[in-house]
Amino acid sequence: MSIQIIDGKAIADEIKKEIAIEVASMIDKDEKAPHLAAIIVGEDAASQTYVASKEKACKSVGITSSVYKLPASTSEKELLDVVHFLNQDLDVDGYIVQLPLPDHIDEQKILLAINPAKDVDGFHPENAGRMMLGLPAYLPATPFGIMELLKRSKIETAAKHVVVIGRSNIVGTPISVMLSRKAQNANATVTLCHSRTKNLKDITLQADILIAAIGKVGFVTADMVKPGATVIDVGIHRVEDVGKEKGYYLTGDVDYEEVAKKASAITPVPGGIGPMTIVSLLQNTLLASKRVIYS
Amino acid sequence: MSIQIIDGKAIADEIKKEIAIEVASMIDKDEKAPHLAAIIVGEDAASQTYVASKEKACKSVGITSSVYKLPASTSEKELLDVVHFLNQDLDVDGYIVQLPLPDHIDEQKILLAINPAKDVDGFHPENAGRMMLGLPAYLPATPFGIMELLKRSKIETAAKHVVVIGRSNIVGTPISVMLSRKAQNANATVTLCHSRTKNLKDITLQADILIAAIGKVGFVTADMVKPGATVIDVGIHRVEDVGKEKGYYLTGDVDYEEVAKKASAITPVPGGIGPMTIVSLLQNTLLASKRVIYS
Repeated sequence: MSIQIIDGKAIADEIKKEIAIEVASMIDKDEKAPHLAAIIVGEDAASQTYVASKEKACKSVGITSSVYKLPASTSEKELLDVVHFLNQDLDVDGYIVQLPLPDHIDEQKILLAINPAKDVDGFHPENAGRMMLGLPAYLPATPFGIMELLKRSKIETAAKHVVVIGRSNIVGTPISVMLSRKAQNANATVTLCHSRTKNLKDITLQADILIAAIGKVGFVTADMVKPGATVIDVGIHRVEDVGKEKGYYLTGDVDYEEVAKKASAITPVPGGIGPMTIVSLLQNTLLASKRVIYS
Repeated sequence: MSIQIIDGKAIADEIKKEIAIEVASMIDKDEKAPHLAAIIVGEDAASQTYVASKEKACKSVGITSSVYKLPASTSEKELLDVVHFLNQDLDVDGYIVQLPLPDHIDEQKILLAINPAKDVDGFHPENAGRMMLGLPAYLPATPFGIMELLKRSKIETAAKHVVVIGRSNIVGTPISVMLSRKAQNANATVTLCHSRTKNLKDITLQADILIAAIGKVGFVTADMVKPGATVIDVGIHRVEDVGKEKGYYLTGDVDYEEVAKKASAITPVPGGIGPMTIVSLLQNTLLASKRVIYS
C-alpha cells in the first residue's frame, strides 16, 4: 500500500507564505502590520526559546512583535496590571502569556483576565465555548494545526469515524469537539478515549482517523490501527540515544515504523504537527488584526 | 430482566426539597433569598407558559422571581438596555432571556451580552468553555439534568462507553463533553453521533449508556440497543391521537415499549428528563446567589 506522509513542514511553509502575502498587502494599503505581544515571567530556558522562535516566525511573515520580560519575582498583581494594559493597548492585536508561570502566580486567574478578543492562544474559556457552540473563535494551536493538516492533505473527515486518544484541554478535548461540529472539514463521528477507557484497542480499530495525544512514547502500536487509517501523531518526546549526534532523538506517541505499514496517511515526528502549532499562532494574530472573530 | 425505570419526577422533587431546605436556611440566617429574573419579549403563548412554570417552580422552593415582559415591538437596543441593567442589578442573582426572540432581534447578540456570572441558562460561551475546560460553570439545563439523573440513579459512568445521538448546542454536544471529563460521575468514553454518522447501529450497539437527543419520534429502536444498556431519552414529542382525552400523547426519541425489554435502565417520556430541566435552572440560581461559580 502506498502511504501518504503528511509533511507538516511543507504545509506550515505554505500557510506562512499565504500569511506573508496578506500582511504585505495590508502594508501596501498603509494598514498597520498585525502585532503580537508576549509576556514571559522568569528565566525558564525552554520558555525563552519558545518565545524567541515565536518572534522569529512573526518576523518571517511581516507580523511585528514585542516581548514583555518580567522578573521571576513579579507579583500576581503586577502581572495582572500588564495583562490589563495589553487588553487596552490598541497597538497590540493579540498576545500570549508564556506558560508555565512561577508558582506564586495563579495561572488560571491570569488566563481568565486576558481579553478573549486578544487571546490568540485560544486558552480563554470564551474562545473554547465559542468554538464548541460553532461561533467564530481563536482555536488553540495544536487542534487548529490538525484541522489544517487534514484539510490541506485532502483527508475527508465528513462521516468518518475519528478516534482521539487523550482528553487534555489543549489538544484532545478541543479537537474532538471541532471535528464533530456541523461544519466544512468536520462532520466526523468522534470518540474521545482516555486513561479510563476500557477495551481501547477495540475502539481504535474502528478509526478511519486516529489522533494520538496521550504523551506516551510509541503508545499506538500497529495492532491498534485499522488498515488504511489516517494516523495523526501529536506526541513529541526526546529519547536519549548516545548513538545520535545530539544525544537524543525525537519521537511521538505512535510506533511510526510499524504503523506506517498499515496506515494510508501518517504524520511523522518531527515534521508533522510540530511545525503547524506556531503557524496557528500566526493565523490567529492575523485574524486578530482584522477584528473578524470579535466584532 | 428486571428494568430500572428512572423516575425523573421523583428525582426532581428530591432536588427541589434539597434546594428548599437550603434557601430556608439562608433566610433563617437573614440572607437574601436567591432571585431569578426572566425577560420575555412578545406574546408567544408557549414562552408565556414556560416562564410562568419557571416562576411557579421558583416559588415552590423559596426562590424569588421577577419577569420583565416587553412588547414584541421592543428594539434590539432596548432589549440590550434591559440586559445591561440586569447585568448590574445586585438584587438579581441570575436571569434568563426566554427564547425565541422576535425576528428583528439578533438572538446571538443578546445571549453574548448576558453577564456570564448571571447566565443561569448556561448558554453563554464563557460557561460552555468553562465546562469544557473543567472549570466551575453554569451547566445548561438538559445536560445538567441528565448528569443528576445518572448520579442519583447510581448508574456508573466511569470507564463506560456512552453514545450520544444528536450534536445540538444545548444537549448533545455539551453532554458528550461533560461525560468525558476527568471528574466524578463522568470519566466515560464518549462517542458523539449525528446526521452524518455512518453505520449508526454498529456504534449504538456498543453503548453502555445511550443518550437519544435527535428530535425524531421513536428513532431509537430495540435493534440499536445493547442488552443491559441504560437508555436516556431526551426527546419530547406530541403525537396526535383522537383516542386520547387531550387529542395527543407525549412520546420521545426512543421506541420505549420495545427498548424497555432490552435495557437495564430507561427514562420514560413524559416523566424522565422533562421534570429535571426546570430543576437545573433552580440549582443554577441557587449557585448564582452563593457566588460560587464566578468569584
